[in-house]
Amino acid sequence: MSERMLTVDEASRTAGEVRGAVPQAREGGGGESQEVAALLDRTREAVEPELRKAVDSMPGTMRRIVTYHFGWEHADGRPAAGRGGKAIRPGLVLAAARALGGSPAAAVKAAAAVELAHNFTLLHDDVIDRDSTRRHRPTAWTVFGDADAILAGDALQALALRVLADDQHPAAGRAAARLAACLVELCEGQHVDTALEDRPCDQVTLDECLGVAEAKTGALLGCACALGALYAGAGVEQVEAMDAFGRQAGLAFQLIDDIIGIWGDPARTGKPVGADLLAGKKSLPVVAALTSDAAAGAELAELYPALRPADVDRAAAAIDRAGGRDWAQTQAADRMSQAVAQLSRAIPDPEAAGGLLALAEFMTRRVS
Amino acid sequence: MSERMLTVDEASRTAGEVRGAVPQAREGGGGESQEVAALLDRTREAVEPELRKAVDSMPGTMRRIVTYHFGWEHADGRPAAGRGGKAIRPGLVLAAARALGGSPAAAVKAAAAVELAHNFTLLHDDVIDRDSTRRHRPTAWTVFGDADAILAGDALQALALRVLADDQHPAAGRAAARLAACLVELCEGQHVDTALEDRPCDQVTLDECLGVAEAKTGALLGCACALGALYAGAGVEQVEAMDAFGRQAGLAFQLIDDIIGIWGDPARTGKPVGADLLAGKKSLPVVAALTSDAAAGAELAELYPALRPADVDRAAAAIDRAGGRDWAQTQAADRMSQAVAQLSRAIPDPEAAGGLLALAEFMTRRVS
Repeated sequence: MSERMLTVDEASRTAGEVRGAVPQAREGGGGESQEVAALLDRTREAVEPELRKAVDSMPGTMRRIVTYHFGWEHADGRPAAGRGGKAIRPGLVLAAARALGGSPAAAVKAAAAVELAHNFTLLHDDVIDRDSTRRHRPTAWTVFGDADAILAGDALQALALRVLADDQHPAAGRAAARLAACLVELCEGQHVDTALEDRPCDQVTLDECLGVAEAKTGALLGCACALGALYAGAGVEQVEAMDAFGRQAGLAFQLIDDIIGIWGDPARTGKPVGADLLAGKKSLPVVAALTSDAAAGAELAELYPALRPADVDRAAAAIDRAGGRDWAQTQAADRMSQAVAQLSRAIPDPEAAGGLLALAEFMTRRVS
Repeated sequence: MSERMLTVDEASRTAGEVRGAVPQAREGGGGESQEVAALLDRTREAVEPELRKAVDSMPGTMRRIVTYHFGWEHADGRPAAGRGGKAIRPGLVLAAARALGGSPAAAVKAAAAVELAHNFTLLHDDVIDRDSTRRHRPTAWTVFGDADAILAGDALQALALRVLADDQHPAAGRAAARLAACLVELCEGQHVDTALEDRPCDQVTLDECLGVAEAKTGALLGCACALGALYAGAGVEQVEAMDAFGRQAGLAFQLIDDIIGIWGDPARTGKPVGADLLAGKKSLPVVAALTSDAAAGAELAELYPALRPADVDRAAAAIDRAGGRDWAQTQAADRMSQAVAQLSRAIPDPEAAGGLLALAEFMTRRVS
């Protein structure tokens, strides 16, 4: 393996590609590369037995809520063909372990723990945000009620930490401490997000929204990378750099997700045109536009957040003219560039870092 | 220290005292014994700094929900004189550690973790059950809304396991695994309880209700005792016996709590007369009466669960005549007797076991 560091040129070229990837994703490109598809398939194959074991250990009827949520069963208990989520987070755990010279097989419990924790947040966020669709199916709370969705989420959080507590790997203890701290951050992120949604638009800053995106999205992606590093026996600096890599890639992902939420192709996003705008979501391009000095920002402020369906195109155009879209694209590219720089700090060999970089690029090119 | 085992006679005498304690509690006796009061005061003194440290580590505004819930602050952030709960669970952790020859000081983090976990369940159960009062104050969800109460509970669960994950004590890892498994059981208990409340009265069995009481109340009390034993370096059999002691004492407590909920003095329980009955609660004496063959059980079934205020006395009398009260008192005494037997298995020296026995008796004599 080469000892060569990723150069700044290479890092900024990668960032440039991400910048280029945004319109591509919007216009229908940016599919799952074969490399990433294979990595995620391998991840699901390795991690799903551990996930099923954890879920099967749940007592009685509660298991049904979780198997429904994961897409393994229909609401009435019949088996379903769902494969759960994309397995990006467990994919990051295993890829990080491998990239740092560890054994992915030894990190499967850590990967399962991160996926259980992620699904805990999904169950609760859906209740709190009253979201009715998840992975193209009705959300658990719409099927089983709030109480059961809350309790199933609670149990998944406990299971996530139980899987780590039961793991004999020497890094399991530190991984549990890190995941538990991350979970506190995730809760805080959702809490601040809820508070921001209730606040008037002119009392929300871009820094607050970036903070929410980091806590809600970046923290667990960073934690996934850090856990993989811990399981590979990496040192403190490498672990922290891997965490920063995941966080920055997570922010880039969120920025692009917000762009797609406004200008994406409904056929690919699975959401009706303007759904985020009509919901009055304080997404990053919207807040960038609202907090700009541009005249178009003031025009948007008059329409937002009680947007009429007839004004969706006008609002999207105003966000664009106020610089919200450019700002988000530039930010995404910058964050991706920082992610790449952190990755090269942790893993100087570009070949070894390849799987992680491909995963990060997949995340930021995704179209739904 | 004496090596003498608690004799069966002593155990059944203790159980007999518990049986005797029920009417005493109901009629206004059963106060906190000086020994227990001192033990709980010492517990609070030792554990509160650890609790506050954990809560202070929470980011931002979320801390306020938790400090309110603990009674440390008013809703507007002014300091309040609340002392949190009675500290029974952390008291059991420390008393178990001491009784088994360990250092209570070394088990303070375990005690704090159990108390954080307990408060996680309180926050969520209050949301799910729509309870409006907790520790004589409005519940957190009534003050801060459902979303924040759910998220604060989520964060407390994560904090509980983080406190253990950060603890350097050699038993901390096993304690975390045990607490996480217990949390899954608590969630399942609340889930089944919610399901039972939605079911017609004639489709609820006494075994199901006892199962709920064990999962919701017994499991965490057992876990508290088991954690104290783990921290004292006890062997597997002792740890399991301590868990069983806490579970059985917890069931005795729940049975007596249910008796007090029907026949207790409102001035002492803090609840209006017949509140549990008017809420249609499927408490243990009620279900015992409904599932009996007695004519009074059929009479109750006609009134329940849509009880009119004018029928509260009639319903309480019917439960009594159908044997619901006697059954609950006998069960409580039996459970307490089993608790004492388990305690003497784990700790043959009655003097060493004294603190734990006093705590269990305090729990089953409490009046509110």
